[in-house]
Amino acid sequence: MITAFHKLHDQYTHRINKVLEQAIQDIPSSVLTAAMSYSLLAGGKRIRPFLVYATGQMFDSQLDWLDAPAAAIEMIHTYSLIHDDLPAMDDDQLRRGMPTCHIKFDEATAILAGDALQTFAFTKLAQAPYLDANCKIALINELSNASGVNGMCLGQSLDLQSEHKEISLSDLQTIHSHKTGALIKSAVRLGMFVAGEHALQYQVSLDNFADHIGLAFQIQDDILDEIGDQNTMGKQQGTDRQLEKNTYITLYGLDNSIKITQKLHTQALEELNKIPYNSEPLHQLANFIISRHF
Amino acid sequence: MITAFHKLHDQYTHRINKVLEQAIQDIPSSVLTAAMSYSLLAGGKRIRPFLVYATGQMFDSQLDWLDAPAAAIEMIHTYSLIHDDLPAMDDDQLRRGMPTCHIKFDEATAILAGDALQTFAFTKLAQAPYLDANCKIALINELSNASGVNGMCLGQSLDLQSEHKEISLSDLQTIHSHKTGALIKSAVRLGMFVAGEHALQYQVSLDNFADHIGLAFQIQDDILDEIGDQNTMGKQQGTDRQLEKNTYITLYGLDNSIKITQKLHTQALEELNKIPYNSEPLHQLANFIISRHF
Repeated sequence: MITAFHKLHDQYTHRINKVLEQAIQDIPSSVLTAAMSYSLLAGGKRIRPFLVYATGQMFDSQLDWLDAPAAAIEMIHTYSLIHDDLPAMDDDQLRRGMPTCHIKFDEATAILAGDALQTFAFTKLAQAPYLDANCKIALINELSNASGVNGMCLGQSLDLQSEHKEISLSDLQTIHSHKTGALIKSAVRLGMFVAGEHALQYQVSLDNFADHIGLAFQIQDDILDEIGDQNTMGKQQGTDRQLEKNTYITLYGLDNSIKITQKLHTQALEELNKIPYNSEPLHQLANFIISRHF
Repeated sequence: MITAFHKLHDQYTHRINKVLEQAIQDIPSSVLTAAMSYSLLAGGKRIRPFLVYATGQMFDSQLDWLDAPAAAIEMIHTYSLIHDDLPAMDDDQLRRGMPTCHIKFDEATAILAGDALQTFAFTKLAQAPYLDANCKIALINELSNASGVNGMCLGQSLDLQSEHKEISLSDLQTIHSHKTGALIKSAVRLGMFVAGEHALQYQVSLDNFADHIGLAFQIQDDILDEIGDQNTMGKQQGTDRQLEKNTYITLYGLDNSIKITQKLHTQALEELNKIPYNSEPLHQLANFIISRHF
């Protein structure tokens, strides 16, 4: 199972890296472009592009059709990491084993690189080949909703406000469902919108699947921040505790957190079983999320 | 002439303020929403919405059709001001006579408010009523190109890199044409795209008009930074000199800069004369730009 997943993951990762490299090559070189490229091409697990590709392919979409939305969501994810790492936010020096964007360049350039990556995501969707205008509008509407004031940005804002405060489990879930969950769900939906009508009828199961793996992904992040290996992770460990952040570990303890991810995993697979298409790649991704060490 | 302009400017400003207020009311309240609202509804000259409305109306578009693009470009403009004011960028404390967003809230919230306003602009375009999907895609493509790595963000990056350095007039024009000019031109184009085919045939004249007033607007900004009144302007004066920024004043002197704006004004009006529609509102805006004191 793991081998099959890694093979597919490698294939999708190789593909999205090529798409992103080409996107960067298409813009004139400048310090700004260099900073965007530095963070965008720094590697990463490419989970969101995987979800776009795997969901679309499940409903017989061609990979060519899925390249633009897969690239767009990775650009949004990367811009959010660049801004989250800034001194005024999480103040991180290291990301994916490399200096963060503002350390490698400077703060102003990192802010602008994040800004321009966000803009570039919408350019890429507006210019997506193969897709008709109605589909592109559905994708732009979905991605902007998931990443803005109703989604990812709100989650990050709530997360910052909750530092040094005790919050409830319900508040923590609200933060996670916006900060991380919204974009994970959006990745699945982008693949679904590209596939069209025959995929849209399974939106409830797809959304539930995405909600479960999104939350499991975040809890696993908390677990790895607590017990992971810095060399494998490529970033500093224990920073959540230092920042007095609320995590599943602080609210629930390590053992219970692991149990919750296992339950979410089971629930995610149950949703996939309701969809009469080959969901093996999404199944494998769910396995990866709860077993990952980085 | 001035009275007619002010009447129309008041009308468009009143309209866009209502549209923006409604857009903010449509999203759930939070600290993030409050920060977005604070900067978006802080007033301002609303030059870009004016250009969208006036250009669209010149070609018989209805104001209802133009609300979404007018709102979207003002959201992009506002996000850029919030980020430009940050300590890592221009480090401004005062904007439109009020504390800048990061002073009123905090740096992290200001970064996120800018991020979310950018996202919101694309949501508004994707959800624009009255417009078909092809038109919306043209608007999103235009606005994202003008504001991103090929436009406004590049201009701001080049501007920051030029601080404390001597640059040529050609370099200064490159900075201005990206940092300010791209969005001014985009405002005219958004109105043009909404109007459709009969407007598109005048794109060369509209682009030239926008280039001329965009540059005149920026030079007038430099002039006002040098000789304007802080109370009228609502921001600190002389900050360009303090930051050792390259401006038309430092490169050309005050008298020559005034002469250049007058020449650009004449050229802008010549372009309007090539368009056989009622361009009086755009004419009046060109007059305002070179005579404004704020």
